[in-house]
Formats: sequence, C-alpha cells, structure tokens
Amino acid sequence: MSHRSKDFTEVLNATEKLLREEMSIPNEFDVLFLQGGATGQFSAIPLNLKGDKESADYAITGAWSSKSADEATKYINVKHVFSSQKPFTTIPDESTWKRDALAAYLYYCANETVHGVEFSSAPETFRGVPLVADISSNFLSRPFSFENHGLVFGGAQKNLGTAGLTLTIVRRDLIGKQHPLTPAVFNYAEMAKHHSVYNTPSVYGIYLTKLVLEWIRDNGGAKAGHIYEIINISKGFYYSPVDPKYRSLMNIPFRIGGAAGNEELESKFVAGALQLGMIGLKGHRSVGGIRASLYNAITMEETMKLGDYMKDFFEKNADY
Amino acid sequence: MSHRSKDFTEVLNATEKLLREEMSIPNEFDVLFLQGGATGQFSAIPLNLKGDKESADYAITGAWSSKSADEATKYINVKHVFSSQKPFTTIPDESTWKRDALAAYLYYCANETVHGVEFSSAPETFRGVPLVADISSNFLSRPFSFENHGLVFGGAQKNLGTAGLTLTIVRRDLIGKQHPLTPAVFNYAEMAKHHSVYNTPSVYGIYLTKLVLEWIRDNGGAKAGHIYEIINISKGFYYSPVDPKYRSLMNIPFRIGGAAGNEELESKFVAGALQLGMIGLKGHRSVGGIRASLYNAITMEETMKLGDYMKDFFEKNADY
Repeated sequence: MSHRSKDFTEVLNATEKLLREEMSIPNEFDVLFLQGGATGQFSAIPLNLKGDKESADYAITGAWSSKSADEATKYINVKHVFSSQKPFTTIPDESTWKRDALAAYLYYCANETVHGVEFSSAPETFRGVPLVADISSNFLSRPFSFENHGLVFGGAQKNLGTAGLTLTIVRRDLIGKQHPLTPAVFNYAEMAKHHSVYNTPSVYGIYLTKLVLEWIRDNGGAKAGHIYEIINISKGFYYSPVDPKYRSLMNIPFRIGGAAGNEELESKFVAGALQLGMIGLKGHRSVGGIRASLYNAITMEETMKLGDYMKDFFEKNADY
Repeated sequence: MSHRSKDFTEVLNATEKLLREEMSIPNEFDVLFLQGGATGQFSAIPLNLKGDKESADYAITGAWSSKSADEATKYINVKHVFSSQKPFTTIPDESTWKRDALAAYLYYCANETVHGVEFSSAPETFRGVPLVADISSNFLSRPFSFENHGLVFGGAQKNLGTAGLTLTIVRRDLIGKQHPLTPAVFNYAEMAKHHSVYNTPSVYGIYLTKLVLEWIRDNGGAKAGHIYEIINISKGFYYSPVDPKYRSLMNIPFRIGGAAGNEELESKFVAGALQLGMIGLKGHRSVGGIRASLYNAITMEETMKLGDYMKDFFEKNADY
C-alpha cells in the first residue's frame, strides 16, 4: 500500500483527528508523525527551535532529560535550571530554579521512566519561554494541558503503539527557523508542509496507533456510558446538567437530589465513597455536586465499582 | 517487550545473521538497523562519510538520486559525474563519467523506482573511492556484490518488511569520522557500538523483516530442494559436483550424462529449454555444463516448469 494512497491517507488523517480529540490539542499546533524515537527528537528539538537564541533551559530530573541535554549541547548552549543531584529522587522547588528569559525553550521530561520521577503538573512558564515536554512514557495516561507549551513529543511504544513512530506536536509559529544542517526528515517545517509524508512514514506504526486511539476512545466511552446509564435510570435522583450531545467521556459532573442538588446528600455520597477507597469525587468548586473523572488510569472494574456504589446509594436514599 | 530483553536480542541477532547469509555480506561490514527511511540516510551518508574530504561524486539517474544529491549539498560539495538529462531514460557510458579521485564516495541508486532506470551491475571503482548504493527497491531481488562498496542501504518497505526500518550496511573502517552536528540516531559509529540499540529500534519492523528473510531463505530452499531432488533420483544422469553440505540454494550447477558431462546432451538440453522460454541455463564458462539460478525473481511455478523439463529430458535421453 502506497503511503500516498487514498487508503493510507485516510488512516493518517483519522489517526491525527483521534489524537487531537483525545489529547485536546489546540489548533495552533501541528501534529507530526516522525521516525527515530524520542532520542531523534533530542537532536531535532534544538536543531529546529534554536533560531537566533543562544541557549535553552533544561530541567534534569533523570536519565532521559540528562541524555537529551547531552545531545543538545551539540547544537545549543544548554543551561541547567538547577544542579541535578544523583540519585534522582525529587525535583527542586520551582521558586529556586534559575531561568533565562532569553532561552529558546525550557525542556523537561514529564515522567522519568528509569528513576520514577514525574512532574505532577507542567512547570510554570517564565516570560513566555515555551515549554518542551517529553511525554513518551505518560502519553494519554493522564490529562495534559498544552498551555504554555511550544512542543510536546514522545515515542509511541509505551502508550500509543509500536516502536518506530514518534509523535511531535509543535506550535506552528515556532517552526521554520531550523539550523541549515538539519536533516530533512528532522525538519519540522518540511514535515509539516508535507503533512508527515515528505518521505514514507512508519505506515504500519501509524495504523497501530490509530487502533490504540480507537481503543482509548471506546474504552473511555464504555466507562462513561456505564455511569451515564445509572444517571438516566435514577429518574432525576442523579442529575447531569450537560447537554447529552456534548457530555464528556472523561469528566462526568452531576448533582444528587435533583437539578439544584442536595448538599447534605452529596456530602454523604462523597464520604461513603471515601470509605470504599474512591477519592476525588467532589465536584469542582465552581460547579458543585459530584464529578466522576474517568481518565485512562481508571479501569472498567473501578468504574463498575463506582456504578455499584451509585446504585446502592440511590436505593438507600431515593426517599430523601 | 523491552528492546534489551533476551527475546528481542535473539530476534535482532537472528535477523542480522539471516541478512548476512542471504546477502553474503562481508565480515568487514557492520549491519545497522536504523529509522528515518532512505531519506534519512540521504543526510546521514554525507554527515558520516565526509570526514576530511571536500566533495562526493553523485550519479543522477532519476528522482531518488536527485533527491539524495540535493540533501547532500547541505553537508558536502556534490559533484555530478555526468549531466543528468531529463527525462531519465538511460545512463551515460561509464567511460564518459567525470570522477574525482579525492571524492569521499561515489553515490548511485541501484534502481530508480520512479523512472525505471536500473544499474545492471555496480559502477566500476575509481582509485579506491568507495561506492555508496541505495538498494531500497531491489534489496535481495537479485545477486548483489559488495565489492568496492563502502555503504549499501535501503528502506525495508519494498522488499524486506515494513516502513519504519532502514538497513545501512557500512564498511567498518569508514565510520567514526562523523560531522560534530550529526544527530546521535544517525551516527553510524554510535549505532554500531550499541549494536543498533542505542535507542529503541523499530522492534516490530525488525521482527517482520526476520519473517521475510526466513521466507526468502525457505522459499529459495524449497525451489532448490525440488531441483536437487530431481538430480538425486536421476541416478547420475544429472550430476552435481558440489558437497551436499555446501550446495547453494541460489545457483545449482550440474552436468548431464555423468560427472564429466556430455557436451552434446548439454547443448541439446539448453536448446530445448530455450524453446520453452527458459533462458540462462548454460553454465558459467569456467565450470561448464548447466547452471540453474533460482533468484527471488524465479517463482516456484517456474522452478516446477524447469523440474518437469528435466524429468522429461531424462526420460527421453536416459539411454544416451
């Protein structure tokens, strides 16, 4: 099958669409399907993003960010925002980081697979310096905000498919300033212009990633469907305020005891759930009520457990 | 499965062993399993092989060699050994080529897929300048001699497996002089040192290539087995001089009419085969007799046709 065939073009477009939907990728980002692994990007990032900057900031929190910083020294002046202390077991408080307002970017590895050190949220931005995140090992494993990011990348093999496919999601305004010696296959502008088919991409790898994304979508959907079904059969005891057409598969906010919500019942619901080991069900303070978040980390089994608890709570409290 | 696991290491080693056997790769060559396609190698070749040379010679015979030469201009002074004339329909006689004895290498594309121009054999060497051959589209499709070559490469997707795996077979003494800005994943010395697992290689792609190589080996074997079987049952009418332990699966030389060969019978055999559309059966002049070459292009059906002819010829001429 040609990588320019109608069949494969459809696979590629569907894969990009699914990824954009599942990750909520903002429109100002290009999604590039590359090769060479995250390690290839360790070179490609400084080659493409240096532009007329002198240096880039790196947060070294383990083996992978170390390796990336070492590779980057070929292309740019690498500044460490803190002295890394081995063994890698923690991340210094951000207030102590030495950051450069003129840095081309601030690089961090969202999760260090070797040392088990993970950023619980992205570092804060500093005077508009774009963040660059290696999310190879936690791609779609938790909610990820693209806010303040210039580039987000990872190999597909841990969460999204098979080795040989690398995803680079880059803000469009940052590309086109690549070093003249950038190999064409690592030239983001060239790859974006050709919609990742400048040369033959990892065709089968992309197809497998499409299947994984469909699985993530449907699995998320199955979990959400189970909870929404219980809401529906409760005849208003549980109340979802959201238009059924636009109901989230990830986050299900609902009230207990009718549309306005009965705060006493809701507190009782949260407390009972806590006793069963289910945490984080209290709704966001701006919305109130309950919120069930069904991220990938929540299994179908755990969703069933929540559903059983909801049914039980409904039966015991229906005559509130 | 980890790319450093025992299971995958066995797959990788077996794949390399099969490729070395099927292609008769000389020991002084390293086999590298890379990513980025042949297009990635268009950059990697000059990055790694330039060393202290000023220029490289390129034979432009179609779209792919053109693209490769364009990419190489980023890294090295590209000299065309002849003016390419579009449309690409022929290759100027080698005696007219302008070659540079100081070139880092002479680059050619063994088969141009777009224009259908193929070198029937490798260009001659010129004062030891190593040849670099892109064999993406005719990998293992015909016998290939590594003589005078410094580097032979290709994407796997046409003959050897799936897109996302690139094979680079490079003479060991040529590596280690890469440009300082060479990305690590394109650094042949680094990749050779780590036996292609400097980073995660295209694991599944390598596994598929192993299956294809086994298929090529067994298919070749099945074809050869059929012919050797007919030789065996002919009780000396057909005579193979080669030690059964070392009999080639690709080329089967044999005599007709006993060990010394009956040249009259042999001529009759070749003439009869020709009438049936089977050409190229005359043995190499240094060996005499008959030679059946069962390259990949020869199907099992064609092998059966030769076998049927051999049985028929034996029955009609057994009392010679």
